[in-house]
Amino acid sequence: MNSMKHRKTIRKYSDRPIPDDVMNELLETACRASTMGGMQLYSIIVTKDEETKKELSPLHFNQPMVMNAPAVLTFCADYHRFTRWCGLRNADAGYDNFESFYNAMIDALLAAQTFCNAAEEKGLGICFLGTTSYNPNEIIDVLHLPELVFPVTTITVGYPAEDPALQDRLPLQGVVHRDRYSDYTDEEIEDIYRYKESLEVNKGFVAENHKENLAQVFTDVRYRRDDNERSSQEMLKALKRQKFI
Amino acid sequence: MNSMKHRKTIRKYSDRPIPDDVMNELLETACRASTMGGMQLYSIIVTKDEETKKELSPLHFNQPMVMNAPAVLTFCADYHRFTRWCGLRNADAGYDNFESFYNAMIDALLAAQTFCNAAEEKGLGICFLGTTSYNPNEIIDVLHLPELVFPVTTITVGYPAEDPALQDRLPLQGVVHRDRYSDYTDEEIEDIYRYKESLEVNKGFVAENHKENLAQVFTDVRYRRDDNERSSQEMLKALKRQKFI
Repeated sequence: MNSMKHRKTIRKYSDRPIPDDVMNELLETACRASTMGGMQLYSIIVTKDEETKKELSPLHFNQPMVMNAPAVLTFCADYHRFTRWCGLRNADAGYDNFESFYNAMIDALLAAQTFCNAAEEKGLGICFLGTTSYNPNEIIDVLHLPELVFPVTTITVGYPAEDPALQDRLPLQGVVHRDRYSDYTDEEIEDIYRYKESLEVNKGFVAENHKENLAQVFTDVRYRRDDNERSSQEMLKALKRQKFI
Repeated sequence: MNSMKHRKTIRKYSDRPIPDDVMNELLETACRASTMGGMQLYSIIVTKDEETKKELSPLHFNQPMVMNAPAVLTFCADYHRFTRWCGLRNADAGYDNFESFYNAMIDALLAAQTFCNAAEEKGLGICFLGTTSYNPNEIIDVLHLPELVFPVTTITVGYPAEDPALQDRLPLQGVVHRDRYSDYTDEEIEDIYRYKESLEVNKGFVAENHKENLAQVFTDVRYRRDDNERSSQEMLKALKRQKFI
């Protein structure tokens, strides 16, 4: 549990390769995670070859982790394999709908996070690429994903070549609710975000972006309405293309 | 990593309560999981009181874990708290869209799975309730979830009062792809599902449901097209209601 408590996202990796037996053990462990009805509604694509990484890199906004990491793992919701099995067994597979996507996506993420917790315990470092939902259609093309397979999230993994500071977190009472959801008063919101706003690193982001405060750095620079709306359209288009809606 | 490798879903819990310091440690650990831009786009509702559990129980098809477990945790995608903060800071929060739901849902699931890995390491047992996506609107009502908050998944947690067998998993090469997705031949599909079909417990399900094979038990009994289509409509209705689409 110690590794989970002190984990840090790693964006720089050493040249040390991940031995095959270590990678296999981590993948086996990931597959022990809870899964809907024992169906394992996911596929894990382990990309190591330079050519495929070069094609993925711009889709992840050329974040250097993609080329720098020894392995890039794309965790996909996958009802294709299960549906193929049903097709061989005279069974009517009704999984071309949003509910089925949702269940497969949960399966993929539980396996992904278990992989990460296991990898970090083994001394490896990981980084989740939030960019997976920005260009799903292009990722589907590069990875040759058939219908009923969808790229849910991507992680890069390797031995760390950096040791960043522990990232700040909101106070626990800011994210945990007792019995039911209790909506926040303005004062509670102020309390919850006070520490984050007080950090020198965050004050630096406010200054260098010429914003009034940290919230505006998020809304105007990092996670903008127009980008979110464009990605939403891409996501819905990709879900339709893969026959999940 | 040992606990991750040998984990089993636990559906029967002893009367032993979970000490507050243990629960807090697990929640703190869950919050160390990776999160989009450090935003922690989730809330965790820890339901212990009998009254609320009684209201949740039928929404989870009266599965006995809800009443039997000392705690029921609903992990919610939450852009409400962040949007409230933006509102106090003259920042235009553009998070009422599918992309934002998707990111918040990933955040919620990474925290949920980290909670589970930590809990199992501490000797607790957990069970994911797939029913969360069947009745999202009623769960929103019972838990008083405001707009931009969505119940992503539910787990029950407590000290185990059973020790079930390890569940079967597909062979690793059935779910892992090298570099890109390689579609399956019919023979590969046969190989992947052979062991699962050979298990006595699964042969029993085929017989007692009067089906030709295991795939039909899934498609005709457990995860039926009509149920999936009904749930899909409920999910989309709930996402609209919570202003995520």
